[in-house]
Amino acid sequence: MKFSFKNDYSEGCHPQILESLLRNNLDQQAGYGDDEYSQKAKSLIKNKIENQNSEVYFVSGGTQANLIVISSILRPYQCVISAATGHILNNETGAIEATGHKILSIEKEDGKLNPSDIIPVLESHKNIPHQVMPKLVYISNSTELGTIYTKKELENLSRFCKENNLYLFMDGARLGHALTSEISDLTLKDIAELTDVFYLGGTKNGALLGEAIVINNKDLQQDFAFNIKQKGALLAKGRLLGIQFLELMQNDLYFNLAKNANQQAMKIKNALSERGVQFLSDTHTNQIFPILTDRMIEVLSEKFEFYVWKKVDENLSAIRLITSWNTQNEAIEEFIETFTGEL
Amino acid sequence: MKFSFKNDYSEGCHPQILESLLRNNLDQQAGYGDDEYSQKAKSLIKNKIENQNSEVYFVSGGTQANLIVISSILRPYQCVISAATGHILNNETGAIEATGHKILSIEKEDGKLNPSDIIPVLESHKNIPHQVMPKLVYISNSTELGTIYTKKELENLSRFCKENNLYLFMDGARLGHALTSEISDLTLKDIAELTDVFYLGGTKNGALLGEAIVINNKDLQQDFAFNIKQKGALLAKGRLLGIQFLELMQNDLYFNLAKNANQQAMKIKNALSERGVQFLSDTHTNQIFPILTDRMIEVLSEKFEFYVWKKVDENLSAIRLITSWNTQNEAIEEFIETFTGEL
Amino acid sequence: MKFSFKNDYSEGCHPQILESLLRNNLDQQAGYGDDEYSQKAKSLIKNKIENQNSEVYFVSGGTQANLIVISSILRPYQCVISAATGHILNNETGAIEATGHKILSIEKEDGKLNPSDIIPVLESHKNIPHQVMPKLVYISNSTELGTIYTKKELENLSRFCKENNLYLFMDGARLGHALTSEISDLTLKDIAELTDVFYLGGTKNGALLGEAIVINNKDLQQDFAFNIKQKGALLAKGRLLGIQFLELMQNDLYFNLAKNANQQAMKIKNALSERGVQFLSDTHTNQIFPILTDRMIEVLSEKFEFYVWKKVDENLSAIRLITSWNTQNEAIEEFIETFTGEL
Amino acid sequence: MKFSFKNDYSEGCHPQILESLLRNNLDQQAGYGDDEYSQKAKSLIKNKIENQNSEVYFVSGGTQANLIVISSILRPYQCVISAATGHILNNETGAIEATGHKILSIEKEDGKLNPSDIIPVLESHKNIPHQVMPKLVYISNSTELGTIYTKKELENLSRFCKENNLYLFMDGARLGHALTSEISDLTLKDIAELTDVFYLGGTKNGALLGEAIVINNKDLQQDFAFNIKQKGALLAKGRLLGIQFLELMQNDLYFNLAKNANQQAMKIKNALSERGVQFLSDTHTNQIFPILTDRMIEVLSEKFEFYVWKKVDENLSAIRLITSWNTQNEAIEEFIETFTGEL
Repeated sequence: MKFSFKNDYSEGCHPQILESLLRNNLDQQAGYGDDEYSQKAKSLIKNKIENQNSEVYFVSGGTQANLIVISSILRPYQCVISAATGHILNNETGAIEATGHKILSIEKEDGKLNPSDIIPVLESHKNIPHQVMPKLVYISNSTELGTIYTKKELENLSRFCKENNLYLFMDGARLGHALTSEISDLTLKDIAELTDVFYLGGTKNGALLGEAIVINNKDLQQDFAFNIKQKGALLAKGRLLGIQFLELMQNDLYFNLAKNANQQAMKIKNALSERGVQFLSDTHTNQIFPILTDRMIEVLSEKFEFYVWKKVDENLSAIRLITSWNTQNEAIEEFIETFTGEL
Repeated sequence: MKFSFKNDYSEGCHPQILESLLRNNLDQQAGYGDDEYSQKAKSLIKNKIENQNSEVYFVSGGTQANLIVISSILRPYQCVISAATGHILNNETGAIEATGHKILSIEKEDGKLNPSDIIPVLESHKNIPHQVMPKLVYISNSTELGTIYTKKELENLSRFCKENNLYLFMDGARLGHALTSEISDLTLKDIAELTDVFYLGGTKNGALLGEAIVINNKDLQQDFAFNIKQKGALLAKGRLLGIQFLELMQNDLYFNLAKNANQQAMKIKNALSERGVQFLSDTHTNQIFPILTDRMIEVLSEKFEFYVWKKVDENLSAIRLITSWNTQNEAIEEFIETFTGEL
Repeated sequence: MKFSFKNDYSEGCHPQILESLLRNNLDQQAGYGDDEYSQKAKSLIKNKIENQNSEVYFVSGGTQANLIVISSILRPYQCVISAATGHILNNETGAIEATGHKILSIEKEDGKLNPSDIIPVLESHKNIPHQVMPKLVYISNSTELGTIYTKKELENLSRFCKENNLYLFMDGARLGHALTSEISDLTLKDIAELTDVFYLGGTKNGALLGEAIVINNKDLQQDFAFNIKQKGALLAKGRLLGIQFLELMQNDLYFNLAKNANQQAMKIKNALSERGVQFLSDTHTNQIFPILTDRMIEVLSEKFEFYVWKKVDENLSAIRLITSWNTQNEAIEEFIETFTGEL
Repeated sequence: MKFSFKNDYSEGCHPQILESLLRNNLDQQAGYGDDEYSQKAKSLIKNKIENQNSEVYFVSGGTQANLIVISSILRPYQCVISAATGHILNNETGAIEATGHKILSIEKEDGKLNPSDIIPVLESHKNIPHQVMPKLVYISNSTELGTIYTKKELENLSRFCKENNLYLFMDGARLGHALTSEISDLTLKDIAELTDVFYLGGTKNGALLGEAIVINNKDLQQDFAFNIKQKGALLAKGRLLGIQFLELMQNDLYFNLAKNANQQAMKIKNALSERGVQFLSDTHTNQIFPILTDRMIEVLSEKFEFYVWKKVDENLSAIRLITSWNTQNEAIEEFIETFTGEL
């Protein structure tokens, strides 16, 4: 079997989670998220963001989180603004539109949005009532390109949204990786203060499944649970989500797992950089996009699985490597050796 | 802690499932249901129904299964026919209507539909194009009242649906309990032959989560996966569902677990019947509805949790007791003793 | 050609409307409802209801009005309460459900809702978040059975809705007929004070097409025009609606037309009553439901078109007769003569 | 009052239509499109396209036609391909997305699509089932920029769609103008042969309201009327649409009206071209986009209404002038004189 760098959800989950599932397995608990584990996990998250007024809900996956949050917030004629690379635009089979809402797309090299990107969209949507009304800004952190927001960038965006009566929603499928990046200056508390809603991704950071939606804006909290149920996302055995987030949030396991993924990616990045490799974008999380010769890609493909992301010129292509909470040194070293051996 | 007879999803899952999750945890697998475990589990199910042309898909829960199946089959102007007790009508926060489809409700004491129930609905929906077009019959087996279909009943209904150009969809959240009921004459193979689509519920029969949707009608198979993804139901770590159904389908674990639930319920039923208790309906699965005095209900409540289902007269109410794959003899015996002691 | 009593939209429109369309035909006007005629017509309606803070919007038909109003008000998990005879339930091809909202149906002989009908529905929808949330009460006046609300009834219902945080929406496709019924004690001003939203039907009262939606609750006014446009209901030549309502609202033409329809129906009702005919319901508007022998129905059918509404016993059926703004004395007299001749 | 070149729906309708409405006004007719006029009008259209197997339906407006046609054809996971200038993308308040379907946008200077535009979209949507499935190509003729398709272009596009299992739908809000353009080589018969569905716009070509949807692909005809009713688009007095299309289709009134609009626009185009004016695009229908100095625009604005379309450079902007079926020589001459006088 080749080692896979295709994504960060190839393995099961952190063993501590399975141990906890086993330990608590035959305990009878209330269903639908009213179990003790879920309550404790929510409490831990509120402590970490230092805000007892936020509300926390667990769902199974990212597409589910995105479609429930967005459809619960918007009125029928309101729409979303997203960078063109946004997961909701191209990787979710039109899940947002299926709930009735248009997404306005903004082309951005780095996958991040700032106020100057959004202003022209607002300007060009003033033909009332013939156009949709932009109402929610969707961002990802880290983005689908592995880039992250700085504190200053997020503060500017947050202020701009408030001034323009827009909601700010952060897709945090890889929020752990963003916050533990070596260059990050943001904390989970900052995220909670600067967004209306965000979620903490478990699926891509060591859980079997699960995203923790955090609603900071009180206006958006009312009746939220109805939306989860209506979209088929309320697990009868909510304990499965509760136990996982309880484990992840204790002793910073969540952040340690993300840090491992980042560090392993950075090892490859540094090794390749030292040997003159260019990258499609300058990332500091668990996704890297080295530009390699087709010959080198062929050689690496014999031992590793990864996506060829984009043809750069006649002989060069960028590949995408993703490391996970469980990527071990052996795989990293073997990758670097294979690369170096072929130089 | 009181022992709970409130539902069949109070505990975690059968230990064999957790062992398998642990055993295969660090194995790298393809995402989104393309893992080996899911493939094997699907294969086992096709063998059990003796039809290699059916298609199997795993999703997380019953509401999700219902809304995806129904919305994938119907055109916008088509609607569902369901018994008034149907789970989709009153327990899923309007999930079906949220996908755009009306449900026509038929009052039935026993929660089961037969052709003579459906004929008047078809007769009264002929004012084209001013009324919705009935197109899909939704049934549950076992029903929300614990009753089950006989082979003859299902054959009649299936034939009627075909003759009237209606699809037949069976909600099998508790299909294991139906098929292992002491009075059942149906097999899983029969179910596959007599329905267009059905699902095998895991959540209420020993899994952490998961329902296996089986599409028997080839016309309804095309592109089904798109619907799963669009509704946010495609788990990145599909292995979680695959491993569970692989364990459940091996060595008839699935049916043995359901049988245990049924038998434990029947023990209470028999004990109470012998002592003259009446039941709201005559069930042979893991749901029973004994009619007790308010005094008796109070006494039992001190040691057990259950729902008071319906007031019957001034002094009597029916309660609902549900047993599970994990209900042990001790709980049953204690319940019967408490009851007998109070007589 | 037989004379038709099938409905109140068999003819074109009141001639005064066509004359006005002709007179103003080549005048250039702003599109999409910003024409002078629409503005004047809205102003006239606000004067009649004595409330300058209500907002008025014109759309083409009743189903359109119903689906736009309801979908603009409700959040995804909220639902409608309606009498089982409600037009939205059985005559609009699931238009409301197609916007994502369930309708809870209440069986009522007279087609009218009062608080005691609604209380049990609220009581049985408290299993949060597993059930839809009732949020809007839909009533018709006159109802689909020709009955009307008294002032006291509407006041009670309105108060109840406010106390229970429910919106009250009146389908006024035949509101003119209700208000000009000989037994009505309600005024248009009352309607505006006692409902959150209602509409004044033009299509069934002498217009070519058009319903005037009146939004009295300020919370429901914001951004309403977006919904009209999004549902394809914003006419480029809004003047067509404006001119019609301008004519109808001037000099009480609207009410005079409805009064004629009512009076012609009452003539038949009285003539038949005097001769011992029973009626399915006691109506005082332009819909009557006499119960006749099959032989009599056959004789009348030779000269008139109407619907046979309901079989009453072996020899008797109720028919439905609807008169319109344009029903002339000749038709009424001939009907009565034919009836009398056959006695 | 300034003369308006803002659009082609500022006036009422062709007087012949009002005369016919008046003439037939008190005739009793069946409702909901079953009137004689609608039947005759449909028959005339089928004769003109020389295809008795097509089906014709009348609705009120373009947004309504677009949303009904598209939502009736597509399955939930399928999407539309449109040029970025498409009316459905930017001028209909997200009406298509509100029915659940994404629109993929293609930037095109001339607003027209050809196979080479579509191929990359198909190529980049092969990640099944994570992306929407492109299934319907939406084009406008004439386009929102006044350009038109040649017969060869439409044949190529039609063949490409068939080969790629895509439906071809033409928005014909201004189809009359396209077909009567001095450079057009297409006939209505060609349009019917080369598209799956198209519509003939009445609203922008002399009707009070109304678009005639023509469904040529038999697979798409079944049950179409249900969709019209469900979306609130089935007029009770369908005669209003029937009478209008009957008048428009008799004696080529429809085409003569469009020809007038085109010719009046061409007069201005020629006059301005001769005097050195450049145009944003080279159009031969009733929309022209001359590029003028800001000073000239100011002068013309004193006498005429029109939209300033796009800033071209510091001193120049393109304006949009639209002529209608009723634009008279006087207005054209005065416009040219004002322009010439200011040179």
